Amino acid sequence: MQCVPLACFQVIRCRAAVAWAPGKLSVEEVEVAPPKAGEVRIKLVATGICRTDEHLLQGCFPNAEFPVIPGHEGAGIVESVGEGVTSMKPGDKVIPLCLPQCGECSFCRNPESNFCQKSHISEPQHLLPDKTTRFSCKGKQIHHFLWVSTFAEYTVVPEYTVAKIDAAAPLDKVCLFGCGFSTGYGAAINTAKVKPGSTCAVFGLGGIGLSVVMGCKAAGASRIIGVDINKDKFAKAKELGATDCINPRDFQKPIQEVLTEMTGQGVDYSFEAIGHKDTMIAALASCNMSTGVCVMIGELDSGSEISIDPTLLLTGRTWKGTVLGGWKTRECIPKLVSSYLEKKFNSDLLITHTLPFAKVNEGFELLRAGKSIRTVLLF
Amino acid sequence: MQCVPLACFQVIRCRAAVAWAPGKLSVEEVEVAPPKAGEVRIKLVATGICRTDEHLLQGCFPNAEFPVIPGHEGAGIVESVGEGVTSMKPGDKVIPLCLPQCGECSFCRNPESNFCQKSHISEPQHLLPDKTTRFSCKGKQIHHFLWVSTFAEYTVVPEYTVAKIDAAAPLDKVCLFGCGFSTGYGAAINTAKVKPGSTCAVFGLGGIGLSVVMGCKAAGASRIIGVDINKDKFAKAKELGATDCINPRDFQKPIQEVLTEMTGQGVDYSFEAIGHKDTMIAALASCNMSTGVCVMIGELDSGSEISIDPTLLLTGRTWKGTVLGGWKTRECIPKLVSSYLEKKFNSDLLITHTLPFAKVNEGFELLRAGKSIRTVLLF
Repeated sequence: MQCVPLACFQVIRCRAAVAWAPGKLSVEEVEVAPPKAGEVRIKLVATGICRTDEHLLQGCFPNAEFPVIPGHEGAGIVESVGEGVTSMKPGDKVIPLCLPQCGECSFCRNPESNFCQKSHISEPQHLLPDKTTRFSCKGKQIHHFLWVSTFAEYTVVPEYTVAKIDAAAPLDKVCLFGCGFSTGYGAAINTAKVKPGSTCAVFGLGGIGLSVVMGCKAAGASRIIGVDINKDKFAKAKELGATDCINPRDFQKPIQEVLTEMTGQGVDYSFEAIGHKDTMIAALASCNMSTGVCVMIGELDSGSEISIDPTLLLTGRTWKGTVLGGWKTRECIPKLVSSYLEKKFNSDLLITHTLPFAKVNEGFELLRAGKSIRTVLLF
Repeated sequence: MQCVPLACFQVIRCRAAVAWAPGKLSVEEVEVAPPKAGEVRIKLVATGICRTDEHLLQGCFPNAEFPVIPGHEGAGIVESVGEGVTSMKPGDKVIPLCLPQCGECSFCRNPESNFCQKSHISEPQHLLPDKTTRFSCKGKQIHHFLWVSTFAEYTVVPEYTVAKIDAAAPLDKVCLFGCGFSTGYGAAINTAKVKPGSTCAVFGLGGIGLSVVMGCKAAGASRIIGVDINKDKFAKAKELGATDCINPRDFQKPIQEVLTEMTGQGVDYSFEAIGHKDTMIAALASCNMSTGVCVMIGELDSGSEISIDPTLLLTGRTWKGTVLGGWKTRECIPKLVSSYLEKKFNSDLLITHTLPFAKVNEGFELLRAGKSIRTVLLF
């Protein structure tokens, strides 16, 4: 018979940032129910603020429900586990994952796919798989966000959407591996499969784009061209590996023509890390017409369409998207953490601000003003 | 000192099909000038009629000029060579290529690209590289088409756009390797890199689509679903390797939903061999959302745009195009001919009609009526 810690049966009262409706967050005292079978309750130590949380607050995220506790880029320590959970135990350091790896669906069984069919694109994640929530506040049920809801001191998630990581990992730093860093870095390494000596263009030098720059550098690209309309971002991009940075507003011609002239025939790999129609098309047109690969990372609002001349593809270009950088999450995020601990890259440079959790709204203001790359909130 | 055969200095008078303007072809007596330095004069033995010739006749082909001698899917015998030509000699069997392989440009030097920068997409091919034509008729200069103009008993082309093939090759059969067969077969083998045991959907069961079916079969696909609104094409598709054939008009729901239901989560590879906006989008949506690869082969009219929901790509799908099936032409077409001679596939089954050259307009009528897969004209 399994020994279940007492804590499993206790409701925890703690702080969380609740969005009662699209708009602002309120830090409230919430109740977090114990984990049910197959679930894990995590005491969060840190969480990043990602633009996807802002999309949620703007009411633009598909399949979300209010009231909700946002946040999906956290790291913490297992507080208790539900019945049948065997892959982790209280005290383990973990990263809750906004893309699960159930291990059982056809995508999880396919070595080339990381797109678990339990992802939010296949089914809404505003409730846990049993269609109930573990959060309540002032007598009301509060929804989960991408199951993980990391803007809370405690959260409950299914075991198959938690990665157990090295006990030496600094949680206030590796929380970025839950979304932004892994997405950008993996877009270069896994999705584009950037080759040594190649040329790359990265549209958008926010947290994701800078992580792409780091991935391109790690893959041995010989030229990495950052593209952004905010020149303040160029110094950091160069620190992380960009060899050139250009501002489309400095040119009279379309940026794809500038990049084609800079590289002779277009870059080998281009990345769109903004989520604008115009930059999606420019990124596609910037890679060379025969073997160029364009990876889309930025998301448009649900239901938006983009219009292209198919000749861009017919000559041989490849256009593809990436979900969480192509990593099979439970399997690979711990390895990324190990690489971080071995100092194979320095994702700490992405963290420009650290705030106490109570200042979550200040963190969003920094994001909206374009003043932060990543703000990490500490509980 | 090189010995130059006398024939090199002679203008040849012979038959050719001339399009004086968009519309119909007239079989005329034309003069074919001798090859200049680096050029080859070929006595054509056979030529296929491809839909791209029909696009030219409709006035829809970019960078074409009238009057013109169409045709780009021929096979013949070298009649004479210009100064400096060393890779072939009179009497050699050859296939003139509508995609050159100059061997010198950055794409030719890139092992992963087959898109020579001397292609018609980079520069017009209505005149030979020295900006003159070798054809005249009734005192007027006649333009080349894609340099090769195979609707003529003799044609002159640059050496780097001719593949020397096995002397045992039947020219009335392997002429298809100049365009249609190689494009479709290579789209599966080279561009999609279809894997054994995979599932494929092929939109459009004309000559190209059926060649895709053959490529998918050769690559070991376990399920090959042909999609066409003309049921008369299903028997041939099944003979060539299709395991299922479906007609979108037999269903009340979008064909991408039908294909997704048939395969669980969408096919591994989809191919668009029609050139319609709707089928391009349907083909993309038919492949599975994570690892699916959609290859576009059919061309829209120049300048057309296509509108898609980028979410189709963001979940991980790959969308790409192919030019002549990804083959480096001079290097690979001879190998394809050898594979044909070794009976690794039977492209003869694509040839539904054989006509004497004088009946070229009858060949186009068969194409327009959807009655032929490939018509081969014999000189």
